[in-house]
Amino acid sequence: MKKFINTPQTYVRESLEGMALAYPERVRINVDPIFAYRADAPVEGKVAVVSGGGSGHEPTHAGFVGVGMLHAACPGDVFVSPTTEQIIAAIKKVNGGAGILNVVKCYWDDMEVFARGAEWAFTQGIPCANILIDDDVAVSQSAYSHGRRGTGTTVLAEKICGAAAERWYDLQKLADLCRRVNVNGRSFGVALTPCTVPLKGVPTFEISEDEIEFGVGIHGEPGRERMKIKDADVLAEKMALEILNDPAYRRTVQEWDWKKGAWVDIELTSEPLRPGDRILAFVNSMGGTPIPELYVMYRKLVEVCEAKGLKVERRLVGTYITAVEMRGASFTLLRLDDEMVTLWDAPVRTPGMRWGI
Amino acid sequence: MKKFINTPQTYVRESLEGMALAYPERVRINVDPIFAYRADAPVEGKVAVVSGGGSGHEPTHAGFVGVGMLHAACPGDVFVSPTTEQIIAAIKKVNGGAGILNVVKCYWDDMEVFARGAEWAFTQGIPCANILIDDDVAVSQSAYSHGRRGTGTTVLAEKICGAAAERWYDLQKLADLCRRVNVNGRSFGVALTPCTVPLKGVPTFEISEDEIEFGVGIHGEPGRERMKIKDADVLAEKMALEILNDPAYRRTVQEWDWKKGAWVDIELTSEPLRPGDRILAFVNSMGGTPIPELYVMYRKLVEVCEAKGLKVERRLVGTYITAVEMRGASFTLLRLDDEMVTLWDAPVRTPGMRWGI
Repeated sequence: MKKFINTPQTYVRESLEGMALAYPERVRINVDPIFAYRADAPVEGKVAVVSGGGSGHEPTHAGFVGVGMLHAACPGDVFVSPTTEQIIAAIKKVNGGAGILNVVKCYWDDMEVFARGAEWAFTQGIPCANILIDDDVAVSQSAYSHGRRGTGTTVLAEKICGAAAERWYDLQKLADLCRRVNVNGRSFGVALTPCTVPLKGVPTFEISEDEIEFGVGIHGEPGRERMKIKDADVLAEKMALEILNDPAYRRTVQEWDWKKGAWVDIELTSEPLRPGDRILAFVNSMGGTPIPELYVMYRKLVEVCEAKGLKVERRLVGTYITAVEMRGASFTLLRLDDEMVTLWDAPVRTPGMRWGI
Repeated sequence: MKKFINTPQTYVRESLEGMALAYPERVRINVDPIFAYRADAPVEGKVAVVSGGGSGHEPTHAGFVGVGMLHAACPGDVFVSPTTEQIIAAIKKVNGGAGILNVVKCYWDDMEVFARGAEWAFTQGIPCANILIDDDVAVSQSAYSHGRRGTGTTVLAEKICGAAAERWYDLQKLADLCRRVNVNGRSFGVALTPCTVPLKGVPTFEISEDEIEFGVGIHGEPGRERMKIKDADVLAEKMALEILNDPAYRRTVQEWDWKKGAWVDIELTSEPLRPGDRILAFVNSMGGTPIPELYVMYRKLVEVCEAKGLKVERRLVGTYITAVEMRGASFTLLRLDDEMVTLWDAPVRTPGMRWGI
């Protein structure tokens, strides 16, 4: 296993310590239990935006800690959820008195630990909204979740809600905004290569030299099909059409009612993208993809979206939600409204996303 | 060859077109001959900072076009120098009447085309300063250059000189600054894997599963030695010591005298780093290295530098000067002074480097 690591057991901690050293004015690390938090936490009177999940998706989530985005992030080991203890410790640290928005990717273990965190917070008089992200068009059933998995839209939700928290949105308004970002976002990914989880030391799957995994999940889960590699334009169009042709997606999710201290069922519908819709187009590297290849894909994505009558008003191209060193790319299309655009354009200063996106 | 490309022949153009689509307010592309330039070029009365070289090092250089950094960048094909025609066209486009600073990596073909560009500019009454970057401690002789190659310090010089150009530095002051950044910067790189140039379609070298190339050049040139992979801390310390123990490096380079229209010899000396020196520590991904691995390396680099009595006052960790999808990392240490720090901290808005570095 060729990696710049000391031991798989110390990898997450050492990388977070390095990140905190590189951004001393923005980020701090709590080592036991481990989480990253804003250097100025807690921010009095503002809702704190918190996220977390398995490591290996960097800069998601710890790299998004900083002004204008997350107040704290709780990383598990690579592709392993964090513990409830981490979530509780992070909530304690960043609670500024106005409540906590937990942004949670649809994955059983993540949902479980954030649920326990919200319930604990209730006993302490801290209101928590746990909003689920379930945007992956390709991965709708797996051993680890029910319904679609959370992927690229997570990054956009954290940026937009982080900006809203800076502008003193209250918890109800933030929860509604985060839910709206989620139902308006859709993602689809492909992998050219597998990745290697440090604790396992072997690639997550095998794939031949001329094949790709079309519709790959955030950890390299099999998606729609394995197919021969295609020209970038052909592949980008196929990926875009998976999102553009996705019909209405209806599901029931559980949300925490922080006033009653109870779980309630919420009906969600993601409406299909329609001509005239304003969108943010996001092309993401899975970790090891050269930047110019992302731009080649973005170029075609824009063409396909415009041919469908969509207006590409904002965009993001780069390495934001990864599967370790996997070579691959995902597309996320987010239907925008005025409020989201204003918040998207707001300043952000974190290790992984910076003003000038 | 697994890549998100259409054809090797169209890869550079299509990726630049995609980049310009992603940053419409900042960057434009001229297709024939191909170069990237600031959307607001020419900037009247300011020196224009121009760079260029083979593609494959993205975001270097085209990704650094924008406010606070480059006015234009001329990309060749992957690992192939641009043409004189590209340099001339870019100079014409961005000339704002105060002259041009060309930042040139030490590589015969790059030096040649920028030299012809400066000579052409002289005939048009446009003063050009061509400043060489030759900072790679590991690669001091190759088939492609005499003396050390230019690598990580190029990024820092483009950032610092770009900020100075925004502040109305005149050409003489900018040339002196760029030369000062160069002689105060030193770099050293290692590769875990080779990379694949699209037009060739095969990896640049072969290396076994437990070996690394220690002291690798910007294109994967063999460096100091091939060795067994080591723990990140051991490797980071070895890399740091290559830079920290490097003695004074003296060389004679040719610079263009834009007043006389002649080439003159200049003596340069890079003094070794000494206890008490203030430095910027830069850990760079060669393209395919996961971000957390860079932070693990950065963590140890800082420790080694501080143990030697250096003061790490600024830092940069990320993907800035690459060899396509190579997994590997380079360290650059730059001795800072007050002026460099002020310019480093100035705003920058480009695709590849943004305010909040």
